[in-house]
Amino acid sequence: MAAGEEESLRLLGLHVSPFALRARMALAFKGVSYEYIEEDLFHKSELLLSSNPVHKKVPVLIHNGRPVCESLVIVQYVDELFAGPNILPADPYERAIARFWAAYIDDKLFPAWVGVMRATTEEDRGEKLKETYAALQNLEKAFSECGNGKSFGGDSVGYLDLALGCFLPWFVALRMMFGVEVIGAANTPLLAAWAERFGETTVAKEVLPEPGEAVAYAKKLQAHRASLNK
Amino acid sequence: MAAGEEESLRLLGLHVSPFALRARMALAFKGVSYEYIEEDLFHKSELLLSSNPVHKKVPVLIHNGRPVCESLVIVQYVDELFAGPNILPADPYERAIARFWAAYIDDKLFPAWVGVMRATTEEDRGEKLKETYAALQNLEKAFSECGNGKSFGGDSVGYLDLALGCFLPWFVALRMMFGVEVIGAANTPLLAAWAERFGETTVAKEVLPEPGEAVAYAKKLQAHRASLNK
Repeated sequence: MAAGEEESLRLLGLHVSPFALRARMALAFKGVSYEYIEEDLFHKSELLLSSNPVHKKVPVLIHNGRPVCESLVIVQYVDELFAGPNILPADPYERAIARFWAAYIDDKLFPAWVGVMRATTEEDRGEKLKETYAALQNLEKAFSECGNGKSFGGDSVGYLDLALGCFLPWFVALRMMFGVEVIGAANTPLLAAWAERFGETTVAKEVLPEPGEAVAYAKKLQAHRASLNK
Repeated sequence: MAAGEEESLRLLGLHVSPFALRARMALAFKGVSYEYIEEDLFHKSELLLSSNPVHKKVPVLIHNGRPVCESLVIVQYVDELFAGPNILPADPYERAIARFWAAYIDDKLFPAWVGVMRATTEEDRGEKLKETYAALQNLEKAFSECGNGKSFGGDSVGYLDLALGCFLPWFVALRMMFGVEVIGAANTPLLAAWAERFGETTVAKEVLPEPGEAVAYAKKLQAHRASLNK
């Protein structure tokens, strides 16, 4: 940038998108100011379509006019660019382990959870719930091996706290919608205690929506899908 | 490690696995010596199962007894840990763009290519081939925007060169098996020229197998699947 020009930082998001929440928590954690732009995914803006022509999805971070897409890429970019406490661990091995589990969340937990939300039969929902539980069991094990027992990031919030924490409103939404508790004292005691603590952190309080908002959005999506199938 | 102990670096791989090739090219690029252990995926070793209990897949890099799994995680770990030329770009924005496209290769190109290999009908193969071409069209565009036109990594080999280059023997194998040219002067002139140049680099020559080996392995897998369906 030319000297004297102002830094410009905009985030295209959706208030209940776990991936957008991840990016927003990273920015909040670093204490960075930015302009937040809520997208309507039923009518995507020209800015979203031109900034993320490949996936056409939120979040997109636009830094001095240059877009960065994909939530984990954004979190790492924010971590590398801005001062403040580290999001990724400083040690290369711990960083590798954090990256491994973050990829696991996106590759295994996310599709299972989406499957629960979109299932059209009880049988299908049961199957996807099983996959969700299995993924969270693996993450329970990961939690016991990473960090210091308080959070994935040790004493402070870290990469995996953001990577998994962005789903917390949706886990509560699952209970409200289908009466299932995917993180709980019985199945995942460590994650259940972590979720409680993470919910009390400043970034979570500042950024995460009420679970009721997730439920309302899920119902809007269901109605939309039903209208397409008519 | 205690002083006096020797560094130990082992890689569990498979000679034709694109993901294992990616990790091996990263190690070759850094000029790091390691013990290579070829896995038999029909009879996975105890070492593989215990080192990667979550996915049970190659590659696994075992550094001083501690496993690192997932090829892109391994490449970044190798880049951060060992001296020598950088694999990821030094600039945070360029790094973000490289990470975006590497994720794209794994999320879009890889499943499309696997679909071509595993298709059991011509219709299904045609569908997956279309997806492969579409993904490579996007990567052609990415290539024109990244690097300096010679390679994704600019003057030297970089993250995306390894991320995509590991598939080159398999693209030739597709031609040998099904008569299709997914990277070629007609559809993807920039990638076609890049593939030629990349094939001439030291890491590619040192690590990539002959396409005939990929074809032989694909036929072995086909025979295995056929025997399971009997």
